[in-house]
Amino acid sequence: MATIDWKARAERISQRLERLAEITDEPGKLTRTLLSPAMAEATQLAAGWMQEAGLQTSIDFIGNLVGRTPGIRREPMSPTPDAEGSRGRGAQHRTFLIGSHLDTVRDAGRFDGGLGVILGIEIADIFRSGFDLPFALMIAGFSDEEGVSFQTAYLGSRAFCGLLRPEDLEVSNREGSLRQLLIDTQTRRAVSPAKVQLGRTTAEVSQVGIKAEPEFRLPRGTVDRDQLVGYFEIHIEQGPVLEDRNLPVGVVTAIAGQSRFRFNWTGKAAHAGTTPVALRKDALLGAARFALRTEDACSRFPGLVATVGELNVSPNVSNVVPGRVTHSLDVRHQEDSVRDAAIAWLCQEADQIAAERKLGLERLLVQDTPSVVCNPDFITRLAAAAKSVTGDSFQLPSGAGHDAVVLSQLCPAGMLFVRCRDGLSHHPDEFVQVDDIEVALRTAVRFMESFGLQDPRSISD
Amino acid sequence: MATIDWKARAERISQRLERLAEITDEPGKLTRTLLSPAMAEATQLAAGWMQEAGLQTSIDFIGNLVGRTPGIRREPMSPTPDAEGSRGRGAQHRTFLIGSHLDTVRDAGRFDGGLGVILGIEIADIFRSGFDLPFALMIAGFSDEEGVSFQTAYLGSRAFCGLLRPEDLEVSNREGSLRQLLIDTQTRRAVSPAKVQLGRTTAEVSQVGIKAEPEFRLPRGTVDRDQLVGYFEIHIEQGPVLEDRNLPVGVVTAIAGQSRFRFNWTGKAAHAGTTPVALRKDALLGAARFALRTEDACSRFPGLVATVGELNVSPNVSNVVPGRVTHSLDVRHQEDSVRDAAIAWLCQEADQIAAERKLGLERLLVQDTPSVVCNPDFITRLAAAAKSVTGDSFQLPSGAGHDAVVLSQLCPAGMLFVRCRDGLSHHPDEFVQVDDIEVALRTAVRFMESFGLQDPRSISD
Repeated sequence: MATIDWKARAERISQRLERLAEITDEPGKLTRTLLSPAMAEATQLAAGWMQEAGLQTSIDFIGNLVGRTPGIRREPMSPTPDAEGSRGRGAQHRTFLIGSHLDTVRDAGRFDGGLGVILGIEIADIFRSGFDLPFALMIAGFSDEEGVSFQTAYLGSRAFCGLLRPEDLEVSNREGSLRQLLIDTQTRRAVSPAKVQLGRTTAEVSQVGIKAEPEFRLPRGTVDRDQLVGYFEIHIEQGPVLEDRNLPVGVVTAIAGQSRFRFNWTGKAAHAGTTPVALRKDALLGAARFALRTEDACSRFPGLVATVGELNVSPNVSNVVPGRVTHSLDVRHQEDSVRDAAIAWLCQEADQIAAERKLGLERLLVQDTPSVVCNPDFITRLAAAAKSVTGDSFQLPSGAGHDAVVLSQLCPAGMLFVRCRDGLSHHPDEFVQVDDIEVALRTAVRFMESFGLQDPRSISD
Repeated sequence: MATIDWKARAERISQRLERLAEITDEPGKLTRTLLSPAMAEATQLAAGWMQEAGLQTSIDFIGNLVGRTPGIRREPMSPTPDAEGSRGRGAQHRTFLIGSHLDTVRDAGRFDGGLGVILGIEIADIFRSGFDLPFALMIAGFSDEEGVSFQTAYLGSRAFCGLLRPEDLEVSNREGSLRQLLIDTQTRRAVSPAKVQLGRTTAEVSQVGIKAEPEFRLPRGTVDRDQLVGYFEIHIEQGPVLEDRNLPVGVVTAIAGQSRFRFNWTGKAAHAGTTPVALRKDALLGAARFALRTEDACSRFPGLVATVGELNVSPNVSNVVPGRVTHSLDVRHQEDSVRDAAIAWLCQEADQIAAERKLGLERLLVQDTPSVVCNPDFITRLAAAAKSVTGDSFQLPSGAGHDAVVLSQLCPAGMLFVRCRDGLSHHPDEFVQVDDIEVALRTAVRFMESFGLQDPRSISD
């Protein structure tokens, strides 16, 4: 019976994350964005680790890194993760995808995204040594989840899934459009096909004497709907819940739906010394009352998170009664019906505050994203796996978005959260203990085993 | 019996205010600041009107305009506005001062300050025609009440009263210190003594070939403590109380004392999607709760005005729980003991909010100005005068500061407020009806008459 040195593997994951974090577009801080020089270098490094794990690697047009197990298994999968008949077709191509993203926010921590990719490579390495799964494994390192370059989200996984539309390429930043960036990258590759080069500026392209071709045909996705039997993503929690409960990992039930509003309260600016309170229309007091109502909403609707994070006062002078306040409202819940009910309650409260205080009130819905429920079968398997490893299991929703939101449009999706220190993420001090990485790895391997090993030996003895 | 055409005089005051408002340092908006070219021009215009009213004019070193009745009356005043024995000395110089300021805020209205000066000139004009008062009259147009140039207050009236200290001249702005501005002005006058010129820049001085002299001896004040029997200021209310009560004028009881604080609330910035409300330390919610407490304080302590006018959130991003909030607190009341009690209550509430929400809280006292009570005898006389003119009388405190704060250090002071439209001031739309100017003029003349005319005829028949 094979024994696995979990601790050594967790250490290797930790060291690889440290090496990845040295590759950055901004010296002194960790920043890697879509198709940047640092992304090209980090992608090559991770591709090397994939190859060491026996995977065949490729990089698609938008920079997504994919490693596949070389053989395609023909045995029927047992049990089937999803009962849909369509899954039966193409059984010979059945592939289970594990992934996360390799891009980062600006001045990022080293676990957000990278942890899931490097853990995926380790899982592939473990399962290649005779512990055959009833499906091929594919490990993905998506090239753009954070959307730093174009203020979008999920460009990498959307392209991977064939869900990008031609009009999505028209987004642009100061350096140009996404379309132009893709053309430049394509041109670069054509110049030196022997080596995958991912660059970003037209200046660099012109240096090698190639005129950029303004046409670009959007390629198909890397995977087909029928091919994928499931998607699994391991990610740091980016919140304080697991730490608060003293748990290394948690099973994600759903990725919360999110509504974002802009509220404008209009009162009347007036002299703070000469205007008695009874004659005021203080926009800030209306907004303050409403901000406190968001807290009440979280009590009335369990699981809700509602936040006023941005608030601006006008004229914002100490001796003038605020005449106007503009603020954001962010409302999230894993169940869309609860979020809708909470928003209705909050809007009613806001109207009442405005009426009582004779304030003008405008509301603008800025964003409305439905929740994504994780596959119930995957949740059950992950919970059992976590319990077998830690003696406990805990389920929680994700308040932040992940690539699983996109992949869930193609196949059943599951997620495992790993505890992070102080709930901190998107910050250089972001930290995950190596012991927790080990628990995550063991839990993930148990989860994969649950789909039925071809070899009667168990890995996670 | 002399009849006075009140309506015509009110119209003249209104027209003079319009002419004054055309004189500005900033084309397109009304702005006149200490010793600026526009202030020099406006001062000369008002000096001409003073001379038409039979006053002898002079301009002091800081640009204050003063007009005096030529004769000095020796008759004893009856009744004495202040019982202090010291008032008895120098009875031969007894002077009653009426005034306000000629400077403005940036983009000002035309009534704030100017109304009191031009009304004062009209009052002097009325009393010169045989209606002798038991004291000399002095009309002042102070050169700096708003403190726009140096972020100070009352530079004009403090200099007029001899209350400026040498160290007060060290305040400076981008163009230099107050001391240098006064030296430049002095030099300019020395060059062309025949005409009073008030200029401001050293560049202009060097054009006439005179090197600025770095020494400057602070002159004595224009008036002595023993000389003044009283100060009377007419000013627009700059608040909505008189309009709300449908009254043209109101008698000021006191100029409220004022405390200004800066509050810093420190919580913990966290992801708005992943941090459950129970695990948050939201600095904005603490500040919001406190802002609402200021409203409660105004109910608990009648006459109090308390305002959070400036509030800044950090990091101020829609999907981040606010980690830090800084805001102002402005508290005013006409009785210092009530203001002190209200501040103590508010600080206790703030501490409790901080403790309940586990927030850090720092408080910084930025300003603490005691209240100035108007002379009770003047209040009585003004109330009687207002009642005789309007059939009603109403008393209110002033929430804003006025030159009367300074003058009250030398002599009994009284103030009359005139209704302004919509409570608006420090704004180009600031407006006072000509009918209300007429009521103010009649009330002021009745008030002056109350000190005993030398001529048995009554003006305000």
